Amino acid sequence: MEMKAGVEGFEFAAASCGLKEDGELDMALILSRASAACAGVFTTNRFAAAPVLLGRQRLKAGRARAVLVNSGCANACTGERGYQDAVESARWLARALEVPEEEVLVASTGVIGTYLPMERIRKGIQALVRERSCEGLPRVARAIMTTDTRPKWTVRRIEVEGRTITLAAVAKGAGMIHPRMATMLCFVVTDASVSSSTLQSALEEAVETSFHRITVDGDTSTNDTVLILANGAAGGAPLEEERQHLEAFRASLCEVLQEMALAIVDDAEGRTKVVRLVVEGALDDYCADRVARTVAHSLLVKTALYGGDVNWGRILAAVGYSGVEVDPERVDLWYGPVQLVRSGRGLGEEAERAAEEIVKKERFDIRISLGEGKGSAVLHTCDLSHDYVSINASYRT
Amino acid sequence: MEMKAGVEGFEFAAASCGLKEDGELDMALILSRASAACAGVFTTNRFAAAPVLLGRQRLKAGRARAVLVNSGCANACTGERGYQDAVESARWLARALEVPEEEVLVASTGVIGTYLPMERIRKGIQALVRERSCEGLPRVARAIMTTDTRPKWTVRRIEVEGRTITLAAVAKGAGMIHPRMATMLCFVVTDASVSSSTLQSALEEAVETSFHRITVDGDTSTNDTVLILANGAAGGAPLEEERQHLEAFRASLCEVLQEMALAIVDDAEGRTKVVRLVVEGALDDYCADRVARTVAHSLLVKTALYGGDVNWGRILAAVGYSGVEVDPERVDLWYGPVQLVRSGRGLGEEAERAAEEIVKKERFDIRISLGEGKGSAVLHTCDLSHDYVSINASYRT
Repeated sequence: MEMKAGVEGFEFAAASCGLKEDGELDMALILSRASAACAGVFTTNRFAAAPVLLGRQRLKAGRARAVLVNSGCANACTGERGYQDAVESARWLARALEVPEEEVLVASTGVIGTYLPMERIRKGIQALVRERSCEGLPRVARAIMTTDTRPKWTVRRIEVEGRTITLAAVAKGAGMIHPRMATMLCFVVTDASVSSSTLQSALEEAVETSFHRITVDGDTSTNDTVLILANGAAGGAPLEEERQHLEAFRASLCEVLQEMALAIVDDAEGRTKVVRLVVEGALDDYCADRVARTVAHSLLVKTALYGGDVNWGRILAAVGYSGVEVDPERVDLWYGPVQLVRSGRGLGEEAERAAEEIVKKERFDIRISLGEGKGSAVLHTCDLSHDYVSINASYRT
Repeated sequence: MEMKAGVEGFEFAAASCGLKEDGELDMALILSRASAACAGVFTTNRFAAAPVLLGRQRLKAGRARAVLVNSGCANACTGERGYQDAVESARWLARALEVPEEEVLVASTGVIGTYLPMERIRKGIQALVRERSCEGLPRVARAIMTTDTRPKWTVRRIEVEGRTITLAAVAKGAGMIHPRMATMLCFVVTDASVSSSTLQSALEEAVETSFHRITVDGDTSTNDTVLILANGAAGGAPLEEERQHLEAFRASLCEVLQEMALAIVDDAEGRTKVVRLVVEGALDDYCADRVARTVAHSLLVKTALYGGDVNWGRILAAVGYSGVEVDPERVDLWYGPVQLVRSGRGLGEEAERAAEEIVKKERFDIRISLGEGKGSAVLHTCDLSHDYVSINASYRT
């Protein structure tokens, strides 16, 4: 990416503390020079990790100065000791930076059920504090990767009354992706001036149109976290004072999160294809969403996509067991522009041959029309390959 | 299997009509010499196949003489033409056997969305009628296979007041297995004297404890069918006249279907391991079942099982997103006899090393205790391997 990664009033750092092998970056720091308004969305998994529990608590005040992130260890299913480790690492960082302890948030990703190696974490924090810089965002994106094959970050600028407001985001995620209720790790920083309550509603709306519209394997993580920090360093009145400015900010935030969400599907573990699944004509959006998720999670649909098999029967079978009332006689189905099913019946070999050209592509749409109403849903998903099995059969070894 | 496959008053036949390649058996006939009481359970998939639609209709009368089965073509998503094909093939068989058309049931399994090759079906029916015999059950089991690697059948005898009653069953299924609401194909024949309404309730009870307790890939088929025919040829009064006799019959039917259900998991596509998943201490059985299904369907749990990785964190993560209220502090977990988690936390490396010996085995239990109440559930499932992906990426090619 060519864009400059800086955001007014923010500093970034990445370091290696030995959580990953071969000296790879595994710790990251995001620091706002001034106290920033802060909002977050977390996993709804009942086994929420220690850093999630701490983050939920601290976010109530709506302010943050710093976010400390590690990869390689999720600090999940670690009980009271894990929680105290999260508190302790935040305390170390707060002291080193001379910021209020309550304004430090932490996030972790990696293996579930192991404790943080606290002595390494302490040294890592020292390195992070030393090495922070205004242009460190791309290194942060690299430090939070686990099975990701490439770093994910983006920067967006909007003009508000002659001032430039910048939004930058980093994200990680490639497996255990089913963020119906939250997402993997994503951190957004902006120099906009905006209150934490406005930030929270803007973030929830943006998550709805981005991370909630992707699925890789249907597994909702214990550590999903999206945080946004807004430090107001761009100057100007708070955005909420002018509806038009706030809308521009909200739209930009949606775009940023959508870009990150699509980057996660694009880097999904072992994927060879990316499919945009469109369900239309459902009774309502909820029904459309349920059909889309059932199709996207079907192992038989996912393996057929991998094999380049135009097996539309498996898609109809998944629609049929989605739990949504469907009249088979009204269902139409397309691969890209090629219609394969009309009124619940296949359109024959010629259509299948045309669709075979579509499924050879790396990216295409599958569109299902239920003919019941005006509800619709879009879900971005991927295929299930031998590599997905290999990656996840040997993740810890 | 050593046992004799005959059941008083029943005949069986299998033939090849070219639906499968290389002249493999692909059509089967089950015939009762007298009109038999009949009961059935079918898929709840909204895209129920033509033979399912016809079977539901004809079962209302509670009587059957014959069941015609083909593999290789599911006759699903084939609309009115597919339904007429099912009616027509039943009619041909009825004429050839000189039995009432309404007492012929049909079942199909194979590729969704293709029409039955009716001329071949007609010739296949002629062959079936010619070749029927009292000992043909094992050949029927072979003729209904698709991705199955071995035929599945069983015979069970019980004594009732000095008379022997026989139950025999054939089943098929290896993928698209998530019969929460029905099952794959299974046909049970018995010479017991019993009414169709008693038969229906006994069958539903037996399905609940057998096919509803297994899952391979979470995909519910369009063609799932379990049928039972009871022709009374063993003689004696109807079983329902003596509670004790009926209970012996019900128990035997449960055992027969459990054997068939376990045979399906045992032959699951690409599986290297079979796991008996036990969830205890849930608020109620429904909650326990939901937790068990969520764990059994997690791709990350399934791939870890395949890799022999004692990744209990993935199991807890799945418990956590099951939608069931769970207190992480109360959750315990065992692999075989080895406890790995107490009160939501891992018990350390020694326990993991002991569990590594368990997961090397082909069959073992995983037990999860939620500490909330007395609800429990058992689910038989398997791992997700490279071979599952290979089989389903290329099923139609």
